[in-house]
Amino acid sequence: MSNRKQVAQLAGVSEATVSRVMNGIGPIKESTRQKVLDAAKQLDYYPNDVARRFAKKQSGNIGVVLPFVPKVNLFSTFYFSEILSGIGEMLHESEYDLLLLFRDADGPKDYSRWFKTGKVDGLIILGSSDSQEERNALLQLADHHVPFCLVNQRYDEEKLSYVDGEHVSGSREMTAYLIQQGCRRIAFLNGPLAYSNSRDRLLGYRQALEEHGIEWNDQYLFYGNYSRKSGAQQAELILKLLPKLDAVYAANDRMAIGVMQTLKQAGIRPGHDLLVAGYDNSDASSVSDPPLTTVHVPFHLMGREAAKYLLRQFGCKEQPEIIQLKLDTKLIIRASTTKN
Amino acid sequence: MSNRKQVAQLAGVSEATVSRVMNGIGPIKESTRQKVLDAAKQLDYYPNDVARRFAKKQSGNIGVVLPFVPKVNLFSTFYFSEILSGIGEMLHESEYDLLLLFRDADGPKDYSRWFKTGKVDGLIILGSSDSQEERNALLQLADHHVPFCLVNQRYDEEKLSYVDGEHVSGSREMTAYLIQQGCRRIAFLNGPLAYSNSRDRLLGYRQALEEHGIEWNDQYLFYGNYSRKSGAQQAELILKLLPKLDAVYAANDRMAIGVMQTLKQAGIRPGHDLLVAGYDNSDASSVSDPPLTTVHVPFHLMGREAAKYLLRQFGCKEQPEIIQLKLDTKLIIRASTTKN
Repeated sequence: MSNRKQVAQLAGVSEATVSRVMNGIGPIKESTRQKVLDAAKQLDYYPNDVARRFAKKQSGNIGVVLPFVPKVNLFSTFYFSEILSGIGEMLHESEYDLLLLFRDADGPKDYSRWFKTGKVDGLIILGSSDSQEERNALLQLADHHVPFCLVNQRYDEEKLSYVDGEHVSGSREMTAYLIQQGCRRIAFLNGPLAYSNSRDRLLGYRQALEEHGIEWNDQYLFYGNYSRKSGAQQAELILKLLPKLDAVYAANDRMAIGVMQTLKQAGIRPGHDLLVAGYDNSDASSVSDPPLTTVHVPFHLMGREAAKYLLRQFGCKEQPEIIQLKLDTKLIIRASTTKN
Repeated sequence: MSNRKQVAQLAGVSEATVSRVMNGIGPIKESTRQKVLDAAKQLDYYPNDVARRFAKKQSGNIGVVLPFVPKVNLFSTFYFSEILSGIGEMLHESEYDLLLLFRDADGPKDYSRWFKTGKVDGLIILGSSDSQEERNALLQLADHHVPFCLVNQRYDEEKLSYVDGEHVSGSREMTAYLIQQGCRRIAFLNGPLAYSNSRDRLLGYRQALEEHGIEWNDQYLFYGNYSRKSGAQQAELILKLLPKLDAVYAANDRMAIGVMQTLKQAGIRPGHDLLVAGYDNSDASSVSDPPLTTVHVPFHLMGREAAKYLLRQFGCKEQPEIIQLKLDTKLIIRASTTKN
């Protein structure tokens, strides 16, 4: 491998000039710049990226924070995969690389250390949920005026940037659709309320019931943890309400698929004897038996938008702007609600 | 934020000593080291990670190379997600971070530039396929004696490290199982032969036929590109062989699910009128209609093993060892082949 000295000799300039050209620092005469670049090309010389970033006080990385849960295959979940894919697509068009960072479930939530140690120039935070500790960590990070963005989670009262889905209207539309299908007794299987997602879906469900003059019934509200297993388990309880039930609507597809498994084992046909709906429009929802009526969430686009926001901040001298973006969802109707 | 100078003053040492302690470079008296660490802690001082790595000539990153295909949501595929998840889990236990890198489909395949620019200390390469250009790029990389590892792809004649699955025996076991189920006319829908995977599966299929005295029939061999769509399309051709066919075995689950869709549209019941099998044991295979008989591939573990191999190289002064690891697969029997 060639070095800076050889490039300087071939170009007939000083080593400092080679550095300045390679790092894009300071004014350089165009003819000099071209001489250096030609010499570097001829010698197959690559300036050290780490050194170059260090000179510019940049890491060149956008960090994506994922929750780390041992023995759970995180990337397998449709949700994280899609968001990551959107971020990756946006960064591929930029000079930035994507650094995956894992947040321990139990460890101290110190997001700022990744900035302090110069590992990242910006952060995208996935899988955040509302606890006092998490909220404090995010507000502390905001105090440092570094660019970061939440995806699919909001802290409504706080001035924190996020890219989210329109989950209230998504859930309201789903519930209204089930009512239009003739259902009045609709069990709702929600996820944990620490996620703004779950609160949004609950609100949408409530709004649709009210708009259609259907009385609220606590008996119809169930909670799982967004896993297929929790859906299958809660379905055991939901079964006890039969035959007084017209539909089960779960806050994500995985739980809905778990519900359908339990129903089928009990000899109840989803889509015939009881309507079942999910949320997310995951890969699995289109191939499940029966295919699942669901709400499409533009996770891929949400990832893209979060990355685009960060890239926009890097050029600015000002402190980061705040964006609060909610992207549209879409009702997807399949056989699990059509009694065909 | 505090700086090195303040730490040096509080600890009563020179700034150079602070650097040496923080970077773990050279011999330092234990009492001095402790004084510096105490002062750093008291002042909430974080040494710049980039500077520290640069001093050690390390990036602290393991790069994971993924194929970049615009408008395809890469992470969504079970295959990449599982491998990435395994790598992430292994690195989480280490001091290394995971840098995602995208290889352009058309661009020059210069893997060495990520080492030359100091972006990574090691590479894990996913989605590699056999072309002269790719082979040259990998051999060139090997010439630099930098640690890297292929996952789920081999170049048999070359001395390149890989972690792969035992796909010949996996495919042989699947084919033998179908024969035991009474099938003699088994269509095989393979993926492109540029993947060692596809060649392994074809070989396993052939071996099982031979072992059971079933004559090879070119008519039964089809090719897709591992997408669900290609499975659905090839199934149109496969349908023309009916009723002279007992089973369709596809080289991955996505194609098998595509095949089942086309069959159902034509009024043919998978698992009753025609047995269907896949390969990968993806999430979708367990929820498809009917659930799919398949071969479990330990993708998560393959990712872990590749990362473990790289971490082992980093401590060594020698040139990287070569590992060639094949992990066991497992037959998974479900309703798509059981005529119940």
